[in-house]
This record gives sequence, C-alpha cells and structure tokens, in this order.
Amino acid sequence: MRAHVPGAGGTALRAADSCSQPRLDGGNPGAPSQAFGCSIFPSSMAAAPRRAGAALQREESGDLTCPLLFIQLNQLLSTPAGLEWREMARWIKFEEKVEDGGERWSAPHVPALPLYSLFQLRTCLQKGTMLLDLDATSFKEIIDKALSGQPEEAELQPALRERLAALLLLQPQHQPTKSLLQLLAELCLSPCREKAKGRCEPRRQLSKTPLQEQLRNRFKKKVPPGAEAAHVAVGEVEFLEKPFAAFIRLRRGVSLGSLAEVSLPSRFLFILLGPPKVRAYHEVGRAMATLLTDELFQRVARQAEHREDLITGIEAFLDELIVLPPGKWDPSTRIPPPRHLPSPRRRTAVDPLDQQPHGNGDMTAAGDRASPGHPHSGEELERTGRLFGGLLRDIRRKAPWYGSDFSDALHPQCLSAVLYIYLATVTNAITFGGMLGDATANMQGVLESFLGTALAGFIFCLFSGQPLTILSSTGPVLVFERLLFSFSQDHSLDYLELRLWIGLWVAFFGVVLVATEASHLVRYFTRFTEEGFCALISLIFIYDSLKKMLSLADAFPINWQYRLDNVTSYSCTCNLSSPGHSSAGNDTLLPSPLVAQQVQPLLPGRQPPATPAGLSRTQCLDRGGHLLGTSCQYVPDVTLISFLLFGGTFLFCFALKRFRSSRYFSVGVRKLVSDFAVVLAILSSCTVDAVLGLETPKLLVPGELKPTNPARGWIVFPFGANPWWVCLVSAVPAVLVTILIFMDQQITAVILNRKEYKLQKGAGFHLDLLCVSLLMFVTSVIGLPWYVSATVISLAHMESLRKESATSAPGEHPKFLGIREQRLTGLTVFLLMGISIFMASLLKYIPMPVLYGVFLHMGVTALNSIQLMDRARLLLMPPKHLPDLAYLRHVPLGRVHLYTIIQLLCLGLLWILKSTVAAIIFPLMLLALVGIRKGLERIFSPHDLSWLDGPLPGPGAAGTPPRERPEHGRGAEECEPMHRPGPQINLSVN
Amino acid sequence: MRAHVPGAGGTALRAADSCSQPRLDGGNPGAPSQAFGCSIFPSSMAAAPRRAGAALQREESGDLTCPLLFIQLNQLLSTPAGLEWREMARWIKFEEKVEDGGERWSAPHVPALPLYSLFQLRTCLQKGTMLLDLDATSFKEIIDKALSGQPEEAELQPALRERLAALLLLQPQHQPTKSLLQLLAELCLSPCREKAKGRCEPRRQLSKTPLQEQLRNRFKKKVPPGAEAAHVAVGEVEFLEKPFAAFIRLRRGVSLGSLAEVSLPSRFLFILLGPPKVRAYHEVGRAMATLLTDELFQRVARQAEHREDLITGIEAFLDELIVLPPGKWDPSTRIPPPRHLPSPRRRTAVDPLDQQPHGNGDMTAAGDRASPGHPHSGEELERTGRLFGGLLRDIRRKAPWYGSDFSDALHPQCLSAVLYIYLATVTNAITFGGMLGDATANMQGVLESFLGTALAGFIFCLFSGQPLTILSSTGPVLVFERLLFSFSQDHSLDYLELRLWIGLWVAFFGVVLVATEASHLVRYFTRFTEEGFCALISLIFIYDSLKKMLSLADAFPINWQYRLDNVTSYSCTCNLSSPGHSSAGNDTLLPSPLVAQQVQPLLPGRQPPATPAGLSRTQCLDRGGHLLGTSCQYVPDVTLISFLLFGGTFLFCFALKRFRSSRYFSVGVRKLVSDFAVVLAILSSCTVDAVLGLETPKLLVPGELKPTNPARGWIVFPFGANPWWVCLVSAVPAVLVTILIFMDQQITAVILNRKEYKLQKGAGFHLDLLCVSLLMFVTSVIGLPWYVSATVISLAHMESLRKESATSAPGEHPKFLGIREQRLTGLTVFLLMGISIFMASLLKYIPMPVLYGVFLHMGVTALNSIQLMDRARLLLMPPKHLPDLAYLRHVPLGRVHLYTIIQLLCLGLLWILKSTVAAIIFPLMLLALVGIRKGLERIFSPHDLSWLDGPLPGPGAAGTPPRERPEHGRGAEECEPMHRPGPQINLSVN
Repeated sequence: MRAHVPGAGGTALRAADSCSQPRLDGGNPGAPSQAFGCSIFPSSMAAAPRRAGAALQREESGDLTCPLLFIQLNQLLSTPAGLEWREMARWIKFEEKVEDGGERWSAPHVPALPLYSLFQLRTCLQKGTMLLDLDATSFKEIIDKALSGQPEEAELQPALRERLAALLLLQPQHQPTKSLLQLLAELCLSPCREKAKGRCEPRRQLSKTPLQEQLRNRFKKKVPPGAEAAHVAVGEVEFLEKPFAAFIRLRRGVSLGSLAEVSLPSRFLFILLGPPKVRAYHEVGRAMATLLTDELFQRVARQAEHREDLITGIEAFLDELIVLPPGKWDPSTRIPPPRHLPSPRRRTAVDPLDQQPHGNGDMTAAGDRASPGHPHSGEELERTGRLFGGLLRDIRRKAPWYGSDFSDALHPQCLSAVLYIYLATVTNAITFGGMLGDATANMQGVLESFLGTALAGFIFCLFSGQPLTILSSTGPVLVFERLLFSFSQDHSLDYLELRLWIGLWVAFFGVVLVATEASHLVRYFTRFTEEGFCALISLIFIYDSLKKMLSLADAFPINWQYRLDNVTSYSCTCNLSSPGHSSAGNDTLLPSPLVAQQVQPLLPGRQPPATPAGLSRTQCLDRGGHLLGTSCQYVPDVTLISFLLFGGTFLFCFALKRFRSSRYFSVGVRKLVSDFAVVLAILSSCTVDAVLGLETPKLLVPGELKPTNPARGWIVFPFGANPWWVCLVSAVPAVLVTILIFMDQQITAVILNRKEYKLQKGAGFHLDLLCVSLLMFVTSVIGLPWYVSATVISLAHMESLRKESATSAPGEHPKFLGIREQRLTGLTVFLLMGISIFMASLLKYIPMPVLYGVFLHMGVTALNSIQLMDRARLLLMPPKHLPDLAYLRHVPLGRVHLYTIIQLLCLGLLWILKSTVAAIIFPLMLLALVGIRKGLERIFSPHDLSWLDGPLPGPGAAGTPPRERPEHGRGAEECEPMHRPGPQINLSVN
Repeated sequence: MRAHVPGAGGTALRAADSCSQPRLDGGNPGAPSQAFGCSIFPSSMAAAPRRAGAALQREESGDLTCPLLFIQLNQLLSTPAGLEWREMARWIKFEEKVEDGGERWSAPHVPALPLYSLFQLRTCLQKGTMLLDLDATSFKEIIDKALSGQPEEAELQPALRERLAALLLLQPQHQPTKSLLQLLAELCLSPCREKAKGRCEPRRQLSKTPLQEQLRNRFKKKVPPGAEAAHVAVGEVEFLEKPFAAFIRLRRGVSLGSLAEVSLPSRFLFILLGPPKVRAYHEVGRAMATLLTDELFQRVARQAEHREDLITGIEAFLDELIVLPPGKWDPSTRIPPPRHLPSPRRRTAVDPLDQQPHGNGDMTAAGDRASPGHPHSGEELERTGRLFGGLLRDIRRKAPWYGSDFSDALHPQCLSAVLYIYLATVTNAITFGGMLGDATANMQGVLESFLGTALAGFIFCLFSGQPLTILSSTGPVLVFERLLFSFSQDHSLDYLELRLWIGLWVAFFGVVLVATEASHLVRYFTRFTEEGFCALISLIFIYDSLKKMLSLADAFPINWQYRLDNVTSYSCTCNLSSPGHSSAGNDTLLPSPLVAQQVQPLLPGRQPPATPAGLSRTQCLDRGGHLLGTSCQYVPDVTLISFLLFGGTFLFCFALKRFRSSRYFSVGVRKLVSDFAVVLAILSSCTVDAVLGLETPKLLVPGELKPTNPARGWIVFPFGANPWWVCLVSAVPAVLVTILIFMDQQITAVILNRKEYKLQKGAGFHLDLLCVSLLMFVTSVIGLPWYVSATVISLAHMESLRKESATSAPGEHPKFLGIREQRLTGLTVFLLMGISIFMASLLKYIPMPVLYGVFLHMGVTALNSIQLMDRARLLLMPPKHLPDLAYLRHVPLGRVHLYTIIQLLCLGLLWILKSTVAAIIFPLMLLALVGIRKGLERIFSPHDLSWLDGPLPGPGAAGTPPRERPEHGRGAEECEPMHRPGPQINLSVN
C-alpha cells in the first residue's frame, strides 16, 4: 500500500491536467494564512502537514481494502405530527438524494459541496464530542455515552440531555427503493391515498431489530457484501441554544436495528443538532457523508487515534479539492458519475508517468518520454530460443484452462452468441462458397465451403490457443485461388493436384515458422498495421454486402419503364416452335447461380393458367422452348422488397444494440434485448418476409453430401495428373501463400488478444499457427477451401461474449470484466454448421437480404470501432469543435491529421491492390505496412507516435513487449483515459 | 443594481439545490479557524465579511455593465533558444488552453481550479506589489513602476530589477486561431516544416504597435466590442531567490502593443515570477485569470481602493465556491460549458422564488407556493370592458410594427422557410382537398382547396395580428363538412346554400365574440389543454401520412403471390366482346380518385404492342371493354418504391436537421444545411425518383380555374334552393362551428404566442379572430372551404424562422433570440400557392410519398416537442434511470405519472371521438378539457400543478395573466431550467 503523504515534503500529487507536477510547497488551505504563505513566499512552515503525514503514514501498515461504507443522512423535520427523522440522502460511492415529495430517489450524482460546509464541518469536529473506538451494543447506549461525553465547557444539562436522547431514539422514516411496477401498482390501487396516508406512528421508538421494510428493501442488492454503515443525523432543535456535534466511531461493527434503511453493521455516527436559526446543518451533514465516501479519509477515520488525526484527514482532503467558479457553473446542476475515476492509489502515489511535463513546459524533455511499459503482457511472445519453445509454452499456458473452457460457457449469453455467429458464418460460407464456385468452375463450391468451414472450425476450436477465433475463408485467399485456377487452366495442369502440393508446402512452411518461433515478429504489428488491415477487412464486408444487394437488381430486374396504362401490353409466352426467331432473345433470364438455385418446382396446388402451351418457365425451357414477350426479363417487387428488408434489418440491428444505453425498462431487459439484437432483427425480418410472401432470394444450403463438381472425388491424389516437377515448383507460390496466411492469421490474432479485452487465459500465437498449418494440410488433401482467422466475425464473436459487472454501487458504471473465454460457443457454431446440410428446410425461410443486412452491420460496427475512423472524422471538423481526446491534448493537430492521411493513403493503396491483378502481391503489401510504419519514425517524433501508435521494438530490445502506449502503460484501472479509450476495437460502442 | 453583500447579515445566496436557504452565519472559509467557528458554534465574529460587505456596497453606485475582459496567460518557458514567453491559455467567459505541441486551442471549458491555488493567489495579493489606478502609457513604464513599487522589506536589487524588466519586455509568442483550411494548407505545403521552423527571433523585444498577426487573428471576431484585456504572466526565473508578485490596475485602458494576441486596451496585469523549485505558478496564474472572469470579482477589482478590498473580493468568491470531492471526480476532466448559467444578479440578489423550502424541509409550507408571476405578459388578454376594446388595442399594438413586418424578412433563412412551408401547404391543400371532394361529391374539391387556401391565407397574413400563423383546413372542420353534406343529402337541402347560412352565422358570432373580448377566455387554456390539442393534431398528421401510404398499397396492389416460375401465366388482355363474362371482374382497378388523376395519355413514342385489339388500358375501357387476366389488377414496384421514398425522405429530413448539432464543418455550413433540411430532402428524393423513372404517384395540381363540380358556380346565392326558415335554423349548427373555430383558432394562437418564443411584436388574439370570422364570410359566399390556424404547419413555420445569436464568447451557447416576425414569408407562400395552378408542369415531378414523408416528419417533430410525450416516456423508465428534469425534482413521481396517465386518457378519448360519428361534439370535448383541468385541482396540489401546468386564473383574479410556472416566473434569462426547458414546443430539439 502506498499511503497518502501530503505536505512535509509535498509528495501529495495533484493529478490535475495542468498541475501534474509534484507540488513541493505543502500548501495547506485550511490553516491560518501565515501557513499558506510558505507555499510561494518562503516563511514558517505549518504544523498541520507534518501531522497529516504522520497520521497517514501509520496506515501504511494497515490493510489495503477497507469495507465499503453505506452512509445514510437522516434529517430532523417538523411535520404536522411533530418532529420526525427522515432519510434525505444516501451514499455508497455517489450521492443519491430523496427528491421533493419524498417518493423517489434521484439519480446518483457526484456530491458537489459548497466550500463553506467543509469548513463548518471541520469546526464541528474540532469543537464537538469525539468518541473513537466506542464499545457499545445498542443505539441507546451510544447516545447516552455521546451525550455524557461532551467537553466540559459545553456540557449539557441533564434535562436537555434526556430530551435529546428521546429525540435521537425516534424511528427514522426510510425511503425504500421501489421498482417501476411497484410504483405503478400503488398508483392504480390508490390514486388519492396520498392524503389519507399521513405517515402512521410518527413518534415510534427506534426498533432494536431490523424492520420488515429493511429486509424487503431492494436496495440491499446494491450494497456490496461486507459493507458497513455510517449514520449522519442533522437537524434543528428548538430547545437547544448552542449546537451539539458528535463524531463516534465504534470499536466493531454493531447492528443498530432499524436506524438505517438496510440492515448493516454500523461503524460511524455523526450527529449535529443545533438551534433553528442556523440552517446549514443539511450541507454539513452532506459534507460529512461525502468525506466518509472518500477512500483516503475513510482510512484515516478508521485509524485515527486523536481528534487531530481526523482534522488532518480533512485537510488532506481539502488539499486535493477541485473547485468550480461560481459564475461559470450552476450549483444546482447534478453532475453524473464519471466513467473513469482516479483510483486512490493513483491519488496518493507518485506515478512516474503522471509526472508528465506540463504542457510545453519543458519542450526539450518532451521527446524522450517514450514510456517504459509493464513487462508482464509480452510473455506470450518472448523468444525462448529453442525449437518449438514457444509452442510448448503455449500448450503449457493453455492446458490448465482446458476444463474451464467448457464450464465457463454455461450462460444464456452464449446461446445468443452461438445463434448470431452461426448465422454470420453460414452466410459467409455461402457467399464465399458461391464466389469460389464461380472462380474454380465448381471444383470448390458451396457444399465444400460448408463442409470445410465446419471441419476446420471445429478442429480449430478444439485445439487452438485462442478458441474465440472464428475461421473462415477470407478475401485474399479467394483472390489467390482464382489466380491459381486460371493459371492451371492456361497451362493444362490439374488444379486440385497443384493446389494440394501448394497446401502441403504451406503446411510445411507453417510448421517451420512455428518451430522457429516466428510469431514473435507480430510485435512489429503495431496499431498502424492492425488498423490498416482491420479497416480493409471491414470495408470489404461493407462493399460485399452492398455489391450483393446490387447484384440482386440484376438477378431480379425491375421494369423501370413500366407504364400503368400499358398493362395490356405486358406478357410472356413460351415459344416452342421457333427458337431462332425470338424477338428479344430473353432466354438468358436469371444468369446468376444464386437465382438458379432459386427456381423451385411448381407448387402442387397451382396450375399455371392461360399460357398457349400451358407451360411454366422451367417446363418451357426444359422442352427447349424460348420465352417471348415484354415481361419475361422482369421480376416485379422482389428487388425492392429485398432492399427494404436489407435496410430494415440493418437499422433494426443498430436500434436494438443501442437499446442497451437507453433509459427504458430495467437493466436486465435492456441487456437481454441488446445481447440478442441481431437474432431478434433476423427473426423479425424473416417474419415480415414470410407474412408478405414474396419470392425473395432465400438462404439455400446444399442438402446432399457430394462434391459440387461431379468430376472430382473427396480425396485429392498427389500424383498422376501433373508432371513430377510440379510438386517441387509449387513451393514458390507456396511462399506467397505462407506470407498471406501468416499475416492474415497473426494480425487477427494480435487484434483479438489486445490487452483491453482483459483476456485471462492468455493467447497462443504459436499454437494457433500450428493448427492453421495442419488444417491447410487436411483441407488440401480433401480439396476443401483454406481457412484462416476472420477478423470481423471473430470480433463480433468476442463482442457477443462481453462480461460486465452486474451489481455495482449506484452511479458506478458497470465494469467491463472481460470476455467469456471458452471453446463451447465456437464448437457449437461449427457443429450446427455441419448439420446445416440437414436443416435446409428450416434455413430456407431466411432471406438473403436479411443476412446481407447483418453483414453490413458487422462491417460498419467493426469499422466504427477503429481509431483510424475517429481520426478520419477529425479531418472534417474545424479545430475548435474537436472532441476532447487524449491524443489531441498531447499531439499537435497537424501531426494527427498527417498521420491519418498517411494511413488513409495506405488503405487506399491496399484496396486498389486487392481489386486488381496485382492482388497476388497483396501479402507483401501487408508486410510493407510494417515498413511504412518504420518509415514514419523519420517524420514523427517518438512522443507523437507513442500517442498515435505504439513504439516498434528497438533493435536491441528483443525482450521488450509490443505496443505500450501512454494510456496503456499504467495500471489496469488507470489505463483508460476519459473520453474514448485507446483500444482500437472499442467493444463498448456498439 | 443589487450588489453582492455576503456575510454581515448573510444575504449572500447559495443557489445550490439543497442549500437554497439564506445562510445566516456568514461563514468565511479563508479566515483563521476561530472565525469559521461563528457559523455554527457561536463565538467571535470575523472581520473580513464586514469589509467585504463594505467593499461591495460601494459599487452599488457604479454602473451595471462592466466591459468584458479578455484575459491571456503568458508563461515563461525555457526553450533551446533561451527563455521565452508563450501564451498558454485565454479566457473570455470560459477557459481555452493551448494543447500540448502548441498548435491548437482546446475546446472552451469551465475553469476548474485546485483549491490551494486560490489560497496561494490570496497570499500573493496580500504580500506582493499592488498598484491601483496606475497611470502609464507603455508596458515599459508599467514594468518600471511595478518593479520599483515593491514593499520595502522585499525591495529588489537594481541589477535584479533590470534583468527582470528585460525579461518581462520580451515579445510573447501568441497562439493564433487557425481555421481547418489554414491548418490543412500548412500541412500540405510543408509537412516537415516543424523541424526547420525553430521560432524565429525568440528574443525579440515587445513591439509597441500591434503586430500583423494580431490584426489578422481570427479570434478578434469572438471578442465583443468594448472589451478590455487583462494579462497574467507567470514563470520560473532562476536568478530570483524569492517570488515577485504584482497586481496592477491601470487608470484607463491602454493599448500595450503586442502583449496580447488581439489588440485591445489593457486594464489589469498580474505578474508572478519566482525561483524554479516551486512550480505552482501556472495554477496561480489560472486562478487569477478565473477570478477576473467572475463578474462580481471584476467589479470589485475595478473599484477597489485598497489591497483589502481585493482580498475581500476573493473571500466573497471563495464563499460561493462549489467543490468536487477528489475521489469522485477526475481532475483532468474538462467540463464543457453549461447551457445555463446563474446570472450575476441572481447570485447576489435574494430572489423570493429561490427561497424554496429545502426538499421536504418544511412540508406544511410546500402547498402554498403557487408562485406569483410577472404581470407584463398578459397585457394582450386583459379585458378593457369596452365593445371591441381588445380589438382596438390589438390594432394599436400591431400597427407600429407593420413596416418592419416587411423589412425584417430580408434574410436567406426566409427563402428556406417559404419553400418548406409552401410545399407543406400545397400537400395539405391537396390532401384535404381530395378528402373534401370525396366527402361533398366534389362540391368542394382540390381546386377550391387551392384557391381558398391561397385567398384566405394571403388575406390573413396581410391583416392578422399574428402573421406567423398559417391557415389551413383542419381535421375537425372536415368532419363537420362531411356530416353537413350527408345531412343535406338526406333532407334534400341545397348543401352550398345551407353552408352559406351557417358560415354567415359563424361570421356573425365571431364578430360578437371579438366585440365582447371573448378571447380573454384563452387564459383558461393551460398547458394541459394545449398539450392535449397539440398532441391530437400531431397524431392526426402522423396517422394521415401513414394511412395515405397504406392506401397506395390499395391503389397500386402488389401481387404477393407472384411466382417467378409462372412468368408465362401472367397477362392482361382487353376483352371488348363479352363484358358479362369477365372471369375476375377486374374493371374496378384503381378505384381511388388520386389514382384516377394519375392515368395519363399514352406516350407518343410507345405503341402498345401485342394486345389482341392493340388497345391500351384507357383505350380499352373507353371503348367499353373489360380487362381480363391475372396481372390486370396488379401494379409492380410502385408501392414498394413509394415506401422507400417515404422512409428515405423522413430519415433524411431528420438526419439533416440533426446535422446542426454535429461537430462537422463550420457553424455556417451546418446552419445552412439544417435550415434547408426539408427542401434538400425533398429535392434529393425527387431526383432519385426521376432517375429511377417508375410511375410513382405525383403531385398533380389542377390546371384550370373552374369549379371542380360543374353543377356549381363561383358565387353561392343565399336564397332560392332551400325553404326560407333554413337560414334561421342554421344558427344552431353555427353555434357548434363557432365553438370549434374558436377553440381551434385560439389554442393554436396561444401555442404560437408562448413566452418562450420571445416574440417582440406581440399577439393579436382579437384581431386574428376577426380575420378568421370575416374570412368565414368570404369563403362561404364563394363556396370555398373554411380555414383556421393550423397548429403543426404554423409551428414548422416558426421553427424555420428561428434567430440565434451569431457571435458569442468561446464556450457560450448561441442564444435563442426570437423568431423572424414578419408577414412576407406567409404572403409569399400563399402567393406561390395561388400561382401553383400555373406551375402544374413543374410540380408534377414531386412524388406524393416524398410529401407524405415530410408530413410524417412534421408530425413527429411536433409530437416530440410536447412535454406530455416526455412524461409518457417516463412511464417506461424505472425510477432510478429517470432524467434529471426540473419537475421531477419537485413533484413526486407517482403524481407525475398519474397526471400523465390522465392526459393520455383524455387524448385517447379525443381520438375516439374524432374518429366516430360523435365527431360533431368534438368542439365541446375541447371545451371539456378545460373542465377536466379544473377538476384536476381536486386531485393535485397547487404545488404539483404549478410544476406540471400553470394555474388557472382564480375566480376573482381576472387581471392575472395565464400560465406562469415556476420556471417561467423568473426573469428572461433565468427562466430556463437546466435540462429541458419547460416550453411545451421545444424548438431547439429538432
């Protein structure tokens, strides 16, 4: 524990933005003004700081964790029935106030105090009764001792003492926490009850045992276990002529019956009663309660031995106060609890990182602040120097977690994750399967894509180091396959056999990379590289979903020239006799393979009427006929309804995701809706589609287990079709594929294993790469597509498995606790994938536009979470409207813009590359990103780069970990700056 | 002027929410602790408060308005080139800080200070040099005097003095304000300039005349005219052994050359230099600057005669401080400027309204706080007691403004308003015209609607008291016309003649109401009535736009059963021979009148092919043929594209409106886009529609000036068709119509004339009613529809004419200045309306779904702006998530919910009434709302009602004005509470 040591050397740290230098003056605002003088004008030192230091240093031997305090403020009010104690406010971390009318608690807020109330409180503690470590078992006993323990000059007369005791022992009226339902129920039952109620038994005595309402109080859930209670009682008493103040600390926590609204052992009591003309008691009571919520003061109060120790504690508190000028701030404003608070440790400690030079206060020193970081996080990527050393470490690290990888999955959230990711994966498999089929003349089609995804994914989830990863075909691999197929066609080589050899080589190279611990090179993948790659993949998602939607307009063409009046002129007939004379040549309707699957047999109950030959479209084409007419090539309504479903699903996903941060309904309902947002959006869109009944393109999974192209079997033989030297030469393209696989796999792995996800079970870069390499071998042999980690789907997977703290003190934001790290969701997804082939009849109700909408949502979500996009938006904002981001406070705007523009140029270059024939060198371009990042060091200062990116490992610094940024270099709690945390993928945004 | 008089009687008001009692203790936080004691523990009084009182009371004779101060903080920094002054922060109202790297100003924020810096500043002022009313003409002179004016014991040696003077006379580096373009331009021109720059001539002497960069500085625009400058200079100087502090006030504003970033006359200087080991100077400088931004301290500083006066000023400032506890607030957080600030007057004055009893502090007193209000606003509705007295007053009040009603319209914003309102009015006229035509067998059709709207609107805008009102047919009137027409049909009466007599009677009754000053009854229309009525009208807008869209699905039916494979089975042929045998009876296609207008002659270039008889639909039907076939009754794509256009327009309107509050681009661009949002949305949707080319239903205005029904002429004759007694009996329905017109007109007028719109030219309730009555006469005679004020369109009109303050200090929110009150926009709208008949060829490109989307937007906007909707949303929120609304702080939640539920029930009842035959008593129901409001007084306490509604005028209180609520009962600036202002129609939300 690092204790609070203000003054006497002045190590108390003012963490204020522009005040982060250690103040060496030991300013003590509360002391007489001569004492202040010492701060700037050297004169006599005050005594108080030394005392404070001593009082707080004593604690250094104490325990770090005090029990939380629940503090209740009771105030004496005069009602028609006489005086009455009523609960007015309560604190755990933040203040909650009973609103006027007394039916409702306010929202928790930062307890802003008027300055004078703190000074008055200090006077109260200086002059009033103080009983430290009182031994008492009941409230009555406490009161008696407090009343008799007055200092001599202020001693109360016995009669007065009795009246005070009787007053203090009255039962206070608590303010129970009601749910919305309770409130509405009461409202319906008795709208005019108000008048009749009249607060039964106002003069009841305090009960010694907890009351019914205390035990029933819903607020109890919010109080963390082990908490103690503190009571603050203030009020005006007419018969008192001078104020009575008492601060009491009990030796141990004693349950004081019905004194507090929840039944907890009590530890502190503060009583302030006085003559009625002075009405500041309420504020003094608030000040006392606020002081007690302060972790540092609480520690002082628990360990103080003398009155002076407490006074010192107040002064230490005053020393850290931030004040708001009266004309610039409306004091009635309630400040909502901030998202991030300085931890008590940070407040007391002299963290070297907090000693940033103020502003440009010391410009020469600004350059060398590339901060040293915590070494613990890089352990996964340290080199052992032994063959397979990293792999062995990975296995050793992950093995102990294997059991919990299954038991940790028992949570309803996982069900939602499974459904969401399953649908995303199926859609992806169909999309890529379709494109692969196009590219390879169905040597690998949709069925192979399904089988391969299920097989590879299942094996990967079972054995990998990071089972949250979802494998999938990725764009770059698809591009390579297309090039490979046309090459083999051009040179009359057998595609599958050539591919088998490349796959074998890649698997071999992969194993070599694992053996040589090449994964430790990912330390060169800084945020710059990650952002470029992740933005590219997200853009591909967005682009593909839009492209697919536009291709629907080709598959189901709309007759834009349709005129209502010409309804009699539109028809389509089957022309069996003269295939050569078809006027418009319309037999090429529906060229897309997607729609070709679409054509279904005629419904049994519907006979096609009125066609000359009485033939439907398929029948006509089957018999060699041609379709003739003005309406043959058009399909009404399908395209437009598809766009409506697409947009609707997309917007609905967003709205439901946002519902979590709305104010409606209880947290549980909102969390549930938000967790199942995508599933709900899909279900409702499917329902709409089913009700409307239009023939929209549906998700059609292959129903039979046989290769798409009948020319191939399930096993690819290594020899026979190609010349013998092909198996050696194929090592050359294999190098390219290896780079591609390595980059694709490892960048995704780096992104998924970022520190801000708070993963507990560690990464397994080497193990993952081994799995991918071995799967390359398997899929090449069976002739299935190749798989690597899919960035966007894996991120969506993690996002759907976020854990947040459930109970927290009112006003505290739920903490992000980490991800549900387990293997079961992944395994289930790929198991479902495997049996999808038998669920074709169920899946065929899902329209493709709905799934494209989900894709778009995934792409946009992933893109939005990249800091690059934030910075790109900054380019459009005038400097004075910029948000208050951490890096903008420290890096000149021009440099930020320059960095963003360079990144956007790189992204543009990558996009052009992947869209042209040059796609073959795409993997090299990814490597080039690392080089460009290196080159940036010549343009940007290390200080700027440390804010915008992490530093690259230095030439001799092989042991230093990757990526520590100023905002990550601190402890776990302090690492998140105010507005937008540094994380590249900000899960909380969605 | 009411000055700040803290202590010595303690009238200083703490406006803190839970501290609003006057504090009678005169606590003085800065004084030695014995002095504090007096607050609660009666002991000796401190001397300081008395001094403070004296110092501030002196000002009472001074002028109210001090010039604003621009304050610049220069700090001494050590650069490689030596010491250098650099601008670090500046203040006008809020603080702006130069961000690290020194290229950019931070966003303005509330200057939160560490408490100790204020105490150190006090010490500096106590011990340092103080020169009040110094006469000097140059900075050098000031420096010399300050250095020689040291107190004796602290006098500096001459050598030191010279070095200090040389140091202080160095030219400071200012931080010019750059626009985004300048910044990007610099970036492109010299990305690596940074290193080469190296701050030319760092050791230049201060210039005596303003520099180029000072004159060019864009920031100058932000400084209000008449402002003065204050300079704060702080820094560490190695050769000093003890600190040097000086506070200097110049006798008059003196231009000090290039000392500040903008060239202003300087008034105050504060210098603090000291040995380097103490580094708190920056914070002390900030404290000084913050103090100077405080209006009250500034007044003290301008008038102080002795050092003690300033100290007293600081103590008064300290007395009002709000502090944030260290553990609950991250001091590095920058607090954005609040929307509403306590005015200096409110801070010093003892406003009786602020003396609200604290919480339930005095429950018995809570009931009688139905606040007394300002009487000035009710002048328009005071009774004169003379015949036409109110009307004469209206005319007298409005006549002086008549000229400015035209000159005030010369602003581009008015152009946008004209376009927006024109399109809304045209759409409304077509919608209502179509429905009226339906209801009255085209006795009043679209053309009559157009003519009537143009005529009535133009006359009204020319002569009315409130020319911002837009006249229109309204729903209730339409219901009445429908009933009247069927009544006259059933009883064989001539509809137009009967209607003429009713109109004449209504006009007569209207004039009687004007003569008897009945409009003063609108004081009974409280927020309760307004909200019910406004919500109903908004809901009708929303309902109608959706209904119209759904009716499109009937007009252009979709073949939901369409199967792709059966394309050959869909056809439609013309059957001329056997009309009796049509299998499906499809000749009833397109029953709606809207679509009937839709049918256009065949395009010349397109011959209808392949139909047996070669006839198009119209040709076929004209020749008595029947359409036969499976595709005849279906229209592909049109409905769906209509829905896409509808939704797109709606969302686009919202997005563009919201663009104003985004961070992108400059304020001017955003304002322009937001002002023209609706016009832009309509234009872009029309473009999309035109590009796609589908035959969507278009806006078709009648092109010829003749009555829709050929059976009628342009003048309705009063006698002839009906029995003579009808003209007398028609007085009975006329009473109902009069009530309807009166309610409809006056509620809208009350809503439009609400105080929060800050209308300058006053209302004219009597004049408006007279205009409407006379127009009733005119329209009845010509047989045109009747017109009253249209709530939703009028609100949209006002909204599009908002004025906001353009220049304001950084961080200040632009003030809502009022509405552009003029007659020209209204006149132009109705003039355009009149000539629309000749613009049919242009208007026919506007699709109806686009206009329905705009309607939906208007309805939703109006609905969202009603507090009732806010409260209805509260019903869905659990109590702990409720927003921090003013009325929730003061009214128990249960009562708020009960009130909301009663309002919603009334709304539901109104809705049911207007939808059924009982619609005839709808006007009476509106009156009943006032009665229900009266009844609410038996359920709710006056205190609750004063927060949720305004009080009704009492039985004997005919002179008191309507509707003063707690939040409106204060001065003009203080009337808006923190979160959501009380106004029913919150313009700023859209």
